[in-house]
Parts: sequence; C-alpha cells; structure tokens
Amino acid sequence: MAQDMTLLWGSGSPPCWRVMIALEEKKLQGYNSRLLSFDKMEHKSQQVLDINPRGQVPSFKHGNVVVNESYAACFYLESRFKSQGTKLIPDGPEEQALMYQRMFEGLSLYDKLSAVIFYDYYVPEGERLESALKRNTETLVTELKLWEGYLEKLGSGSYLAGKDFTMTDVVVFPTVATAFRFGLSAGRYPKLGAYHALMKERPSIKASWPPHWLENLKGQDTLKDI
Amino acid sequence: MAQDMTLLWGSGSPPCWRVMIALEEKKLQGYNSRLLSFDKMEHKSQQVLDINPRGQVPSFKHGNVVVNESYAACFYLESRFKSQGTKLIPDGPEEQALMYQRMFEGLSLYDKLSAVIFYDYYVPEGERLESALKRNTETLVTELKLWEGYLEKLGSGSYLAGKDFTMTDVVVFPTVATAFRFGLSAGRYPKLGAYHALMKERPSIKASWPPHWLENLKGQDTLKDI
Repeated sequence: MAQDMTLLWGSGSPPCWRVMIALEEKKLQGYNSRLLSFDKMEHKSQQVLDINPRGQVPSFKHGNVVVNESYAACFYLESRFKSQGTKLIPDGPEEQALMYQRMFEGLSLYDKLSAVIFYDYYVPEGERLESALKRNTETLVTELKLWEGYLEKLGSGSYLAGKDFTMTDVVVFPTVATAFRFGLSAGRYPKLGAYHALMKERPSIKASWPPHWLENLKGQDTLKDI
Repeated sequence: MAQDMTLLWGSGSPPCWRVMIALEEKKLQGYNSRLLSFDKMEHKSQQVLDINPRGQVPSFKHGNVVVNESYAACFYLESRFKSQGTKLIPDGPEEQALMYQRMFEGLSLYDKLSAVIFYDYYVPEGERLESALKRNTETLVTELKLWEGYLEKLGSGSYLAGKDFTMTDVVVFPTVATAFRFGLSAGRYPKLGAYHALMKERPSIKASWPPHWLENLKGQDTLKDI
C-alpha cells in the first residue's frame, strides 16, 4: 500500500502520533515503520539525521519527498491522498474555519502541556523554579478549561471542530491523550474525558496507540490535582 | 472589496503581520483595520475578547466566521479566495511538501527568536537567568544558521520554499524582518539579508510594514553580535 513511505517515530511522542493517525485515516497502512528509542537517543542517530537535520522525530519520507514537521506531514498526506480514506478538511467555509482555528490552538495546548509535564526535561536542573512550574500549571489549567468549554458548546458526541472527525482531531487528540496519561481527571474535565473515550474506540487511534502505554498501563499522576 | 472583514492587530506583531500580508496578497484590501495599542493593553479590551476569548491579536472576523490564529487565518483566506490574487499553495507535490515543511519550521524560528528578544517580557523579573538567556541565544543561532543554509541551497533570488513566493513567505517573513529589526547582521547572515531585501520591495510587504517601524527607523540591537 504505502511501501514508498518511511516513518521514524518514538512511542508516546504526540507529534509522531499525529502522523501515524493521519496515515491510518488515509488508508496508508503498510509504510516502513521504524520505532526508535528516545532512551537510547536514537532520534539523534544518523538514520534520522539523514532525513531530518534537526535530529527529531517524526521523520517522514515519501519517495523523495521529506516532510518532518508533524502538521506539515498531515497537510501533505491530506493533499496528496485527498480522495482516499477519511476526508480530513471539510468543504464548508465555516466548518473549515473552525477546523483551522482549533488545529492551531492545538499548538498552544501542546506547548502549555509540555511546559508542565516535561518541565524537568526542558529546564536544566540548576534553573528549575517552583514559581515557574506553578505559573505554567495555572496557564495549562486555563487552557484546558477553554477546550472543556469548546466541547461543551459543541454538544455531546462532538469532535474538536464539530460533528465530524477532522484534521483537528488528528493533530490535537495525541495531546489530549497525553494529558490523561499524565493523570488528568475525567471527573474534573468531563467533556475532555468523554472526547478521550470516544476517540479511543476509533480504529486509527487503536492502531497507533503508543506501544509502551500498552505495556505499562499505568501512567504518571503529574496532573491528577489540577 | 473586503468590507465584511475586520482585523484587530498590533504594530510589529509577527502573527498580526502574517494575516495582513495574506490579505494583501489575496487582494482583500479595504477590510476594517483596527490598530490596537499593546502599551495601552487594548489587546485585552472587550472588542478583542468579543472575537477572541484568548485576548490576543490578531483577531479576525469575516462575516460570522472568526479565525484568530494567524496560520489558521492564512489557510482560511487561501482556501476561501483560491483563485483571487497570489496563489499561495503550489500544485506540485514536491513544492507543496517543501512549503508545508518550511511553514511549520517557521514556528520554531519564531519561538526561538521570541525566547531571546522577548525574554524579559515572558520571564518575570525574579526568575531571569543569564544562563537561560545564553542558552536561548545559542539555540536561536543554530536555528538561524539552518535557514541561512536553506536559502543558500535554493540559490540566489529564492523565496523560502523555492523560486516562487508562497504561504511560507507570508507566515515566516515577519519573523525574519523582526530579527533584522532587532539588530541581526546581514553581513553575518547574507542569505537571510538578501531575502529580507528582496521581500521589502514586495507590494504586500510595503503595504503592511509596521507603522511604528516607519515612525522610528532605528530598531533595537539585541541581536547585533550573534
């Protein structure tokens, strides 16, 4: 099916997961899938650097075309395989506008989540400050409440940009799932919890679920009290 | 022409500038343009909050459609006015792939630039550290060298994603211009300097040049030694 495609990825990386969901939705199974280990620093290995000078995953190649940025790869796949699999960009101007808007707000959600759950990874030991982590956490809570409100307004059973599954779900769901993996409470964020439960049943999500989350069912509890 | 469109913006904000360039390129002059003052905190005013719950500019409305995220607004305008003005997304799959790739790398460039030039804005006084600003600056230099290399590879007179002006230029040029406004040396980054000079002559750029840069021709020298 997609033998001329290669994806280098790491388990649990939201950017990698986005591309994997897009590939599933566009019925592009059968690509060369290479799972790399972050612990072994394989994302800095020569096989990554050959495709991606940034030394990051995802690294994605289709024939001679290289598209490593996760959002870019999702746009590329939708454009290249428009009539195959799930239609990820709606036709209606209003639906499209909301889809684009939420897609890009999704980058804020991801940044704000990362600034809390990966704080120790991004900030060197001598520079870590309780006050900064506290502020980052408050910023994340404000952001999560925005999304909870968006889903509430759309009504039950909705996807992130309306009644239909779109590109927004492809790129933002991995962030939502990561928040729950890090202990976010579905009791406190019921709409996000319901969205998470809805998406977990989707074949593209099941097929791309991070393997190390399956091996070790228990995640962290970093966000349990927010 | 575009009387059913309203843009709330701030002078010198790269995200606002992106939308203004897109509007110019798509021949959508004549929109309701409302210049707000960051100093007076007008981006937190009710007229912004009515459109944008995040209290940020750009805030953009077209009829009843609201699209505030700058990348989202650019995609929306291109999709809605595909055959009007400049074609911003090329047809060829390889050209398209490069355009998407560089567009999204452009977000890294913007983040890394902001982490240096707006360091004092983002980090509260008691938390500022020389070591962090130094690391941010090194990260920015690495990033700028990547872009310098991209332009070198494309050859002289190129735009950011090839021989033609694309959406990548719409969204990334404001960041490049901001780097030069903050003292980046065209001597040390000659390809970026040539690109900056090329773009400055473009009508859409001239028409949308930050007014306070025109009033005060001298920028900062934050980046002069990097």
